[in-house]
Amino acid sequence: MKLFDVYPLYNVTPVKAQGAYVWDNKGDKYLDLYGGHGVISIGHTHPTYKAALENQLSNIGFYSNAIQNPLQQELADKLGELSGCGEDYALFLCSSGAEANENAIKVASFYNQKSRVIAFKNGFHGRTSGAVSITDNPKIIAPINAHNPVTILPLNDIELVKAEIAKGDVSSVIVEPIQGVGGLDMPTTEFLQAVRKITQENNVCLILDEVQSGYGRSGKFFAHQHHGVKADIIPMAKGMGNGFPIGGVLIANHIEPWYGMLGTTFGGSHLACAAGIAVLDVMKQENIMQNVADVNAYFQEQVKDLPGLKQVKGQGLMLGLEFNYEVGELRKKLIYDYKIFTGGANNKNLLRILPPLNVTKADIDVFVEALKELL
Amino acid sequence: MKLFDVYPLYNVTPVKAQGAYVWDNKGDKYLDLYGGHGVISIGHTHPTYKAALENQLSNIGFYSNAIQNPLQQELADKLGELSGCGEDYALFLCSSGAEANENAIKVASFYNQKSRVIAFKNGFHGRTSGAVSITDNPKIIAPINAHNPVTILPLNDIELVKAEIAKGDVSSVIVEPIQGVGGLDMPTTEFLQAVRKITQENNVCLILDEVQSGYGRSGKFFAHQHHGVKADIIPMAKGMGNGFPIGGVLIANHIEPWYGMLGTTFGGSHLACAAGIAVLDVMKQENIMQNVADVNAYFQEQVKDLPGLKQVKGQGLMLGLEFNYEVGELRKKLIYDYKIFTGGANNKNLLRILPPLNVTKADIDVFVEALKELL
Ligand SMILES: Cc1ncc(COP(=O)(O)O)c(C=O)c1O
Ligand SMILES: Cc1ncc(COP(=O)(O)O)c(C=O)c1O
Repeated sequence: MKLFDVYPLYNVTPVKAQGAYVWDNKGDKYLDLYGGHGVISIGHTHPTYKAALENQLSNIGFYSNAIQNPLQQELADKLGELSGCGEDYALFLCSSGAEANENAIKVASFYNQKSRVIAFKNGFHGRTSGAVSITDNPKIIAPINAHNPVTILPLNDIELVKAEIAKGDVSSVIVEPIQGVGGLDMPTTEFLQAVRKITQENNVCLILDEVQSGYGRSGKFFAHQHHGVKADIIPMAKGMGNGFPIGGVLIANHIEPWYGMLGTTFGGSHLACAAGIAVLDVMKQENIMQNVADVNAYFQEQVKDLPGLKQVKGQGLMLGLEFNYEVGELRKKLIYDYKIFTGGANNKNLLRILPPLNVTKADIDVFVEALKELL
Repeated sequence: MKLFDVYPLYNVTPVKAQGAYVWDNKGDKYLDLYGGHGVISIGHTHPTYKAALENQLSNIGFYSNAIQNPLQQELADKLGELSGCGEDYALFLCSSGAEANENAIKVASFYNQKSRVIAFKNGFHGRTSGAVSITDNPKIIAPINAHNPVTILPLNDIELVKAEIAKGDVSSVIVEPIQGVGGLDMPTTEFLQAVRKITQENNVCLILDEVQSGYGRSGKFFAHQHHGVKADIIPMAKGMGNGFPIGGVLIANHIEPWYGMLGTTFGGSHLACAAGIAVLDVMKQENIMQNVADVNAYFQEQVKDLPGLKQVKGQGLMLGLEFNYEVGELRKKLIYDYKIFTGGANNKNLLRILPPLNVTKADIDVFVEALKELL
């Protein structure tokens, strides 16, 4: 049977991975500054993570959400502590970023009984009907995904947001604190705070999509914590399981659950929780968020004089190097000639950098040396 | 941090599982005739499965869908062979049943550029916007999930289907070959064949939702194979990963992919493929589908004279015992007094039986003995 051919592929076949490095089937070693779209948080094949999954697999990998599973509570407690959100939110577990966003917009809609979502230009929120309808990319929206009432506004124009909310039918406003797929544009602190104020005054839910920017990637646990705002709902996914399919939503206490309101077969399974707990344990033990801040500072310093570099976008280890030209060729040379994985974005001039969060300064040196030769 | 309290829970805490048995934190042993909603296909903690996951975890658990991953092709080949669908379909991988259905209705909509979906009374297709909009349960549909054009018809009334399709705006018809959550009602062969004919004539996609009924559960690989029909699109999930979060869609060859048409971060990861391949290997090695047929025959024979039993619904090991009264109390007694997990359904008089597919006749004896004492 064929694979449904929707992915353009690099001609590299990874078969082994460790920390920030990946080996292909020919034994070639690659520096991974992409982490499979920002998924690898604590490093490939981390020993604590591997041991936790193996241990869980020997006991019980899965049962349904109809029985007690204390691992879910352990995950919630550790997430609450490390994120600083423990007091104010409750956790719902699912299996992807799209599912996290689906649950977010659904919870908001159940809460205020409205439907319309305000999202932003160049935003990306996933592929399922609800998630893709709020994504700013008409090409990937099938006719059946185009029925939800959605308004896409430019980032950072508060008057436009106010005008839409004034119409009275808005259920939620969804923003990526750092745009990922779009190309590392960010809402300003002033804008986010103003959106927080206007949404609160109008019983509109503010959803901060931390699927890519969360879990320490920005240097704080959640990227929106750089801006002194609090969300009503926080969808999360990529970094949560270090590659294991886990998504989740933090839901503020004023939104009340009821039996049957949300549901999933796989979300919150024993094995998923074991992966999620191991990630949080390692993040704490290895002081990962401090490493993100340190390596960011080092990175900024090292790249600042690179020829042709227009600007460095993003925060922490969710970074974009913007050039004055398209970077497709540069990315190919990096991967094939220098054995370094990087990412692209909607913004074709942008090289996306999403390394494992325990990447070292020495790894950054390897990258900067390559760029110096190439540019 | 609290868990968002949406699940009513039995007061049992499984901590270990093996084959068709589960142990709780007090050391009590339970017979698992439910498999966490039909997820456990080859038995809990199967040694082949466990070894495959451990091996994969030691090498590489995850990279993105931007690189070559031959494990996806291996999974597709083995799935094509065991299901007999290899020639006619291509595989897309995702992470849940809801995602499988989202991709199914999206692919149909891209294909024929229409939107409306015909679904059926008492059907269940998942919780994301698209999937829940085609699910017949208004309580779980938030206002934001209610904008898709969907028509819910009673099962097995072909004239109603014809009348809707005649309107010209129908993109797909979605049917569960055996209803799961609803309570084991089935479309007739005659109805399915007539739906196949009318959809084909009108360029409407037929989606057969095998998320619960697929992967050998009915005694054939796909439950619709009992009816001599072929689908355009086949969503799958539960049994695929024996508890690992995997979903997939088989898409008939006349529907052409294009780069970017579908996408997912986690779907098709190395670890997910290792789980999926192990499941297919064990199904083949242990001749699981034959066991399903054998144990079904034995089960039917053993339960047929149970007092108060109205009928046995379903096929293979996707079964419902329908009584003349609500079974909630019976399920509680089975779990707390007899240590046997069973399932419920929308139909409150129905006891749902979804054991691991390698359950034995001796396991069925334990259940039947318990029922004989209880009824
Ligand atoms: C901000 C954001 N939200 C949602 C998603 C969707 O996540 P998934 O691919 O796991 O469904 C992505 C994926 O790239 C993302 O970057
Ligand atoms: C027939 C059917 N389709 C879809 C789903 C949704 O699957 P998931 O819970 O993995 O999203 C289910 C789950 O029970 C199902 O039974």
